[in-house]
Amino acid sequence: MSFVDTILKKKAGLPLSDEEIRTFARGAADGSIPDYQLSSLLMAICFQGMNAQETTQLTMEMMHSGSVVDLSQIDGVCVDKHSTGGVGDTTTLVLVPLAAACGAKVAKLSGRGLGHTGGTLDKLESIPGCSVEKTQEGFVEQVKKIGCAVIGQTGDLCPADKALYALRDVTGTVGSIPLIASSIVSKKLASGAGAIVLDVKTGSGALMQTVEESIQLAKAMVDIGTVAGKPILALVTGMDQPLGTHVGNALEVKEAIDILSGRAGGDLLEVSLELGSRMLIASGIAKDVEDGKARMMQALKSGAGLKKLAEMIEMQGGDPRCCEEIAYLPHAAYKIAVPALKSGYVAQMDTTQIGYCAQDLGAGRKVKTDVIDPAVGLVMDVRLGDYVQEGEALATLYLNKRELAAAAIEKMQRAITIAKEKPELPPLVYAAVSPEGIVRA
Amino acid sequence: MSFVDTILKKKAGLPLSDEEIRTFARGAADGSIPDYQLSSLLMAICFQGMNAQETTQLTMEMMHSGSVVDLSQIDGVCVDKHSTGGVGDTTTLVLVPLAAACGAKVAKLSGRGLGHTGGTLDKLESIPGCSVEKTQEGFVEQVKKIGCAVIGQTGDLCPADKALYALRDVTGTVGSIPLIASSIVSKKLASGAGAIVLDVKTGSGALMQTVEESIQLAKAMVDIGTVAGKPILALVTGMDQPLGTHVGNALEVKEAIDILSGRAGGDLLEVSLELGSRMLIASGIAKDVEDGKARMMQALKSGAGLKKLAEMIEMQGGDPRCCEEIAYLPHAAYKIAVPALKSGYVAQMDTTQIGYCAQDLGAGRKVKTDVIDPAVGLVMDVRLGDYVQEGEALATLYLNKRELAAAAIEKMQRAITIAKEKPELPPLVYAAVSPEGIVRA
Repeated sequence: MSFVDTILKKKAGLPLSDEEIRTFARGAADGSIPDYQLSSLLMAICFQGMNAQETTQLTMEMMHSGSVVDLSQIDGVCVDKHSTGGVGDTTTLVLVPLAAACGAKVAKLSGRGLGHTGGTLDKLESIPGCSVEKTQEGFVEQVKKIGCAVIGQTGDLCPADKALYALRDVTGTVGSIPLIASSIVSKKLASGAGAIVLDVKTGSGALMQTVEESIQLAKAMVDIGTVAGKPILALVTGMDQPLGTHVGNALEVKEAIDILSGRAGGDLLEVSLELGSRMLIASGIAKDVEDGKARMMQALKSGAGLKKLAEMIEMQGGDPRCCEEIAYLPHAAYKIAVPALKSGYVAQMDTTQIGYCAQDLGAGRKVKTDVIDPAVGLVMDVRLGDYVQEGEALATLYLNKRELAAAAIEKMQRAITIAKEKPELPPLVYAAVSPEGIVRA
Repeated sequence: MSFVDTILKKKAGLPLSDEEIRTFARGAADGSIPDYQLSSLLMAICFQGMNAQETTQLTMEMMHSGSVVDLSQIDGVCVDKHSTGGVGDTTTLVLVPLAAACGAKVAKLSGRGLGHTGGTLDKLESIPGCSVEKTQEGFVEQVKKIGCAVIGQTGDLCPADKALYALRDVTGTVGSIPLIASSIVSKKLASGAGAIVLDVKTGSGALMQTVEESIQLAKAMVDIGTVAGKPILALVTGMDQPLGTHVGNALEVKEAIDILSGRAGGDLLEVSLELGSRMLIASGIAKDVEDGKARMMQALKSGAGLKKLAEMIEMQGGDPRCCEEIAYLPHAAYKIAVPALKSGYVAQMDTTQIGYCAQDLGAGRKVKTDVIDPAVGLVMDVRLGDYVQEGEALATLYLNKRELAAAAIEKMQRAITIAKEKPELPPLVYAAVSPEGIVRA
């Protein structure tokens, strides 16, 4: 049976066999199936979908296409958290230290930012001296010693996913729930995760813009993880505005430190507690969400979370003094306010455009080779539902190149809609998805 | 705007702009768009289709991607006929001489056989000495002198179509009406055709197996030709059994000669008259189908058609004596009957399998580099609806390798269904499609 027959089968809406999916994944990894056949099948999958069996099989084949991180030397269940990506989404830097302070083992392989969403590795690297590169031994050693580590990918994980992901990006085949779900879960499994908590963002700054699609994606991933025998939970959370107030690398580190110091709170803390409590449940530490949140808050109030962040930064070569004194973080030369053009309620935000605005200032990459300026970005001065007077600040730009201000101010003003009526506020958590089912907020 | 945006637009079901289709066709021709993006868009087109404007634009862009044959030196309208391909489909060798004898100018660039369908070039080459290669000047000269020529493609026609066609074949994207229609019509237009008659086959031996799809394809092609300002007519004709009784290269030449000599008739003659009369209408020679058929029959009865075929063979270097004496054609060493396994009515034929059977004997190519044996093939002894006694011949194999007989006999017996009930006979012409509309038989 030739690969064209596999393509025709999927085109006709029929499910592929395990063997066909194995050929597909292996062919992507070793290059034995040409890209033009892979992309044609990917597009057919976008239209015809894949059932649970196909999606799980693809996940397993992609996971086993490369090396799998061995975390067996670490006592207890290693729990990982993954977010589908948002703007001002600094949950990792808040919840990893808190969860570790509560006794969880968090061995996290993270990613870099591309497009309008930030990446945890870039944020960590904005801390002077902090490195995100470790050998696998060093990675395991750090988790054994302090309970957490966040570094870049080690080894050749999921080459099949890497090849398909790169191809999907240039062939218009990103938007497919089974393809997104298998890509994410295969990487988490290959990273050695013993338990997984997923944060599926929904709204104007997210990959999935509708709640129903986001819930479907969450369910697809929970189904795969369950078949793979891993404790797995997912939340669908709002991305209708930046989650935290800070957008940009050192700015987001600052916000995480502010939260762990008890100086700040808000939605970012709230979502971090929701996700973190589920990491504690998946780790067998907390008995329910309420218990998990209480433990996380205790670690916050006692300062144990901040101390854990300082330890992690230090073990990764960074200057832990930034946890006590923000001035140790890089800071931008200029702060310029974005004034509201009229009075009224903040009714809507185009969160993707806010992300691009920070990228324009140098906080993100347009292409993989772009160099990030760690200090720049923006801080939101308003949230949805706030009332502003004409001329009041909607946000404050932090920048090193003054000439970028005018365009950024205009982009921000266009991204934020001001209306006469007070808008209905979107929920922060739309749904919780577990192997037991979907609970909508 | 990047090409990924074009793919995403089509994926979402939106029509592409003329400019986007130009980029697509040019990118296919010059290789500036990678195959994996082309194939992804092709698959999206298979699902979302293309409207009349898009299909016409793609046709024109493919036509202009290479050289266009200049037939302006030939007086009158050059008319071309194209068949989507069938088994025992020798209409070209019957109707080209007849139409030319009636005064039409037929400058035809034809193709070779691949898969289960035969190619006119291979049939002509089975005539000793006959060549299908000419310079463009020689081609025009021959049509000016005798009114007809059938040769292989000259020059670099439709490189965009060539690239896309090769890609479609290996990416499961052949089955799309706008892609098939634009591919066929672009080649006809680039061949310099002033008027076009199309024969869309439908049934068990055809690309399109349902009548409705065949009618849609015919309509799509007529629409394009009409927008391009060319007189164009299409027939949807049956391919539920081999059209002529002879399948194989010299065997099909023999059948054409038999028909032009008045020794044979049947469905092949009938369809040739239907198509040929429309070529005369499109050429402005006949006033309607009845008039066209009468003129064609007159040319047949007077021997003018056979004389024209002999002239064409001679001008292409072949031995015209075969038109008078069949023995000048190559003939196979062995004739072996395929006996009916039971008595009953011939109820159904798997025409594709009959085509493959002739291919197995050496009459066709499995891959492009296969060498054809001009003498071999098969002659059908029954047609749908005939009653046969057990042991009577269903067909006669003509072969040079006796060891191929057993498998071919079995394949033929499996391809022909014999039933107790007399079947309802399918029509020969299902529909006629013109710019005025669709007339169903």
